[in-house]
Amino acid sequence: MAAQHRSHPFSWLDEAAARRSAAGLTRRLQIRPATEHPPLMDLASNDYLGLSLDPDIAEAAAAAARAWGAGATGSRLVTGSTQLHAELEAELADLYGAESALVFSSGYAANLGMLTALCPRDGLLVCDRNNHASLIDATRLAKAGGAQVQVYAHADPGAADRLLAASNRPALVVSDTVFSVDGDLTDLPALHRTCRERGAGLLLDDAHGIGVLGPAGAGAPAEAGLVSDTGGRRRGCDDVVVSVTLSKALGAQGGAVLGPRRVIEHLVSTARTFIFDTGLAPPATAGALAALRRIRAEPQRPHRARAVARQFAQELARAGFAVQQPTAAVASVRAPSPDTAVVWQQQCRERGVRVGCFRPPSVPDGVSRLRITARADLGDEDVTRALEAITATAPPGARRGADPDHSHTP
Amino acid sequence: MAAQHRSHPFSWLDEAAARRSAAGLTRRLQIRPATEHPPLMDLASNDYLGLSLDPDIAEAAAAAARAWGAGATGSRLVTGSTQLHAELEAELADLYGAESALVFSSGYAANLGMLTALCPRDGLLVCDRNNHASLIDATRLAKAGGAQVQVYAHADPGAADRLLAASNRPALVVSDTVFSVDGDLTDLPALHRTCRERGAGLLLDDAHGIGVLGPAGAGAPAEAGLVSDTGGRRRGCDDVVVSVTLSKALGAQGGAVLGPRRVIEHLVSTARTFIFDTGLAPPATAGALAALRRIRAEPQRPHRARAVARQFAQELARAGFAVQQPTAAVASVRAPSPDTAVVWQQQCRERGVRVGCFRPPSVPDGVSRLRITARADLGDEDVTRALEAITATAPPGARRGADPDHSHTP
Repeated sequence: MAAQHRSHPFSWLDEAAARRSAAGLTRRLQIRPATEHPPLMDLASNDYLGLSLDPDIAEAAAAAARAWGAGATGSRLVTGSTQLHAELEAELADLYGAESALVFSSGYAANLGMLTALCPRDGLLVCDRNNHASLIDATRLAKAGGAQVQVYAHADPGAADRLLAASNRPALVVSDTVFSVDGDLTDLPALHRTCRERGAGLLLDDAHGIGVLGPAGAGAPAEAGLVSDTGGRRRGCDDVVVSVTLSKALGAQGGAVLGPRRVIEHLVSTARTFIFDTGLAPPATAGALAALRRIRAEPQRPHRARAVARQFAQELARAGFAVQQPTAAVASVRAPSPDTAVVWQQQCRERGVRVGCFRPPSVPDGVSRLRITARADLGDEDVTRALEAITATAPPGARRGADPDHSHTP
Repeated sequence: MAAQHRSHPFSWLDEAAARRSAAGLTRRLQIRPATEHPPLMDLASNDYLGLSLDPDIAEAAAAAARAWGAGATGSRLVTGSTQLHAELEAELADLYGAESALVFSSGYAANLGMLTALCPRDGLLVCDRNNHASLIDATRLAKAGGAQVQVYAHADPGAADRLLAASNRPALVVSDTVFSVDGDLTDLPALHRTCRERGAGLLLDDAHGIGVLGPAGAGAPAEAGLVSDTGGRRRGCDDVVVSVTLSKALGAQGGAVLGPRRVIEHLVSTARTFIFDTGLAPPATAGALAALRRIRAEPQRPHRARAVARQFAQELARAGFAVQQPTAAVASVRAPSPDTAVVWQQQCRERGVRVGCFRPPSVPDGVSRLRITARADLGDEDVTRALEAITATAPPGARRGADPDHSHTP
C-alpha cells in the first residue's frame, strides 16, 4: 500500500535546513543575557520611545501582576476582560478618535481577527504588495472563506483604484501605514480618497505609526489628516478601521483594533482570534496603558524618535549607502547579500551596537538589509557612535557608488 | 460604473448584528472589576491550578517587568529572546521529554506556526472534526499553501487511519488532546499507533493537558504513554510534536511548541507567527516559568484539579444533567438553547458562582453549554456550594429526564 512507503514525517526538514544553510538563510536565536558586557546600544528593537524599560511603566506592569495576576485566565469573552482592558480600550479609542477599541493578545491576532471578520463572504480585498505577514496571512484566511484577493503595486493608490473600479463586489483596501522593512509611509490621503469614491472600506495596520507619528503619537491616520479635531476632540472616519500594536512604541505586548462602534461589536461576536484566544495578560495591558499616558504627557518623545531616524538616514545616505528617507522611526540600509548582512550586523555588535538584520523571507523584494530603529532616548553622541560603527564595518558593495543596483534610493 | 453603487462598507454589519440578536448569539464583554461584591467563585476561567494569582508567580512576573521591561521589544529573531525565554524553553522541553521547545506569544500563534511550517507543500493534514479554532485556522492557511485537508469524525482513530491509507502524500494527523468544550481526551495511543503504521507525523495541541494530566502535570502525551521514562529522564517520540499554552494551568500568557530538535530549528527559520510577531513579554515568560516550577514541586495540584472536575461531573450526572465524564479539569453541562444557557449562567452568577457559557460558534455541535472548570484550590465546601447553585437555577429541559435528546451522556 502506498501509504506504507512514507518516509519519516520530519526527514524532509533536514533537506530544507541544508538548503537554507547553503543560501545563507539559517536563523539562530540570539539570547539576550540579563546584563551584557560591554553593554550594547539597541538599534534593533521596536522600542521606539525607549519606554519598555521605563521604571514607571515597568512598575505599572508589576502592580498589575500583583493585583490581577500573571495572566488573564480565559478568553476575553469569559473571564479575560478586566477593568484594565476596558481602560486601555477607552484611551486607545480616544487617542485615535475612534468610537471604540478592542484589545487582542498580539498585533498579529488583531490583524487576523479584523480582516477575517470584516471581509464579507463574497468581498474583495485590495492589498498592498508589501503588507506585513500578519495581513497576508489574514487575507489567506479570508480567501479560504470565499473572499477574492487582489494585490496592487507597493504604495500605489492609483493601482488600488483600478482594482476597485474593475469589480462590483463589496470591497476593503488593506495596507500597512508605515511599512516595517523600509519605514516608508504609504499615501494615506490618496488611498482614503479612492476608498471613499469607490465605496470601499479602508483597513490600516498602524503598528509602526502609533506613538511615533501624528500629534502626541496619535498615529498615521491623524498625521495624514484622516482624523478631524474640533476643540481637542478627535474623530476618525466611519469607513476606516485601524489595527495597532502595543509591543512597539508602547513597550508592552498585544494589539488592538480601533474603529466605529458597530465594527468593534462585530469583532466581539465574530473575530476568531478574539473569541478563541486568552485575553492579553494584565501586566502587558497595564504597561501599555501607562505608556499611552506617558506619551500624551510627553509629546516630544515621538518627535525625538522621528528626528533621530531622519538623522541616521541622512548621514548614511551622505556616506553613500542605499537608504530610504524615513517618515517614522525606522531606517533601512541595503546589504549586498544575506551573508554580508549577517557579518555586517555581527561587526556592528562587536563595536557595541545592536542593529537588526532582515533577510528573505522577511523582506518583500528579496534584498537583505540592516534595519536601524531610532529611539527617542538616544542622545546625539549615541547617534554619532552608531553611525561610526555602521559605516566602519560596511561590506564591499554596500555603498551606492560600488553597486549601481541600489541607485534607486534617494 | 458598478463600483460606485457600493453601499457603505460596514452597513452590512448592522444586519449581521440583528441576525445574531434574533438567534440569541450576541456576545457582550463582561468586565471584571478590581474587587467584586460579593466575591464570585471562579468556575469559568482556565486557571486550573489556581496559579494565576499565586503571590510567588505574580512576584516573578513583577520582577521580570522590572528587570527586563514590560515587553520583549522585538521579534524573537531580533531582540525578543531573553534568557527567561531560553530557561522556559529548556524546562518545558524537559517536562515533555522533548529535545527542544519554542515559545510563541500565544497558543493560537503556536498552532498557526507549528502547522503551517511543518506541513509539506503537497502534504495531507488529517484533522479531528472538533479541533480548536486555532488548529482549524492553521489548516486553512496550510491549505492555502497547497496542502490537502481531510477531516475525520471526532476522536475516531480508525477514521483517521482510513484517510491515511487512502493517500500516498506525506501526512500529518492533527488533534487536540483534551477538547476544550467537553473536556474529553482523545485516544492518543491508538492515534499514535496509526501514525506510526502509516508513516504520518502526529501534531497535538495539549492546551488543556499541560499542568493537569500526566505525572506532575507533564501533559496528555505522558499520561497516554507516548513518553518513555528511564531513570527519571523523559523522552518523547520522534514523530510527535506538541503545542501547549502558558495561559491556562500555568496562569500566564503565551504558547509553545515542543518536539524534536530539527522540528524546532525549522520553526525558528520558517514559522511566520514566530518570525513576524513580537516575542512573549518578559512578565508572562517569568510567570509561566515560576508556575512550571511550582507544579513540579507540588504534583498534588494536577491531581486535585482532576478530582474536583470528576466530582462536579458525577454529581451533575446523578442529578440528571447531560454531562460527560471528564479526564482533565473541564466539565460541560448541556443547555436546551443559547438563550436559556445565558440565563442559567446569569442566575449562577447571582448565587455567587461564575461559570462559562459556550454558544455557537464556540461549540462544534451547535449545542449551547455551561462550561465548568475545576480548580485545584477549590475546597469541598466550594464544590458543594457550586453544585447547589447550578442545580437550583437549571432551566426546564436541562435535565436528561425532561429531554431525551441528551440521553447519549453517561
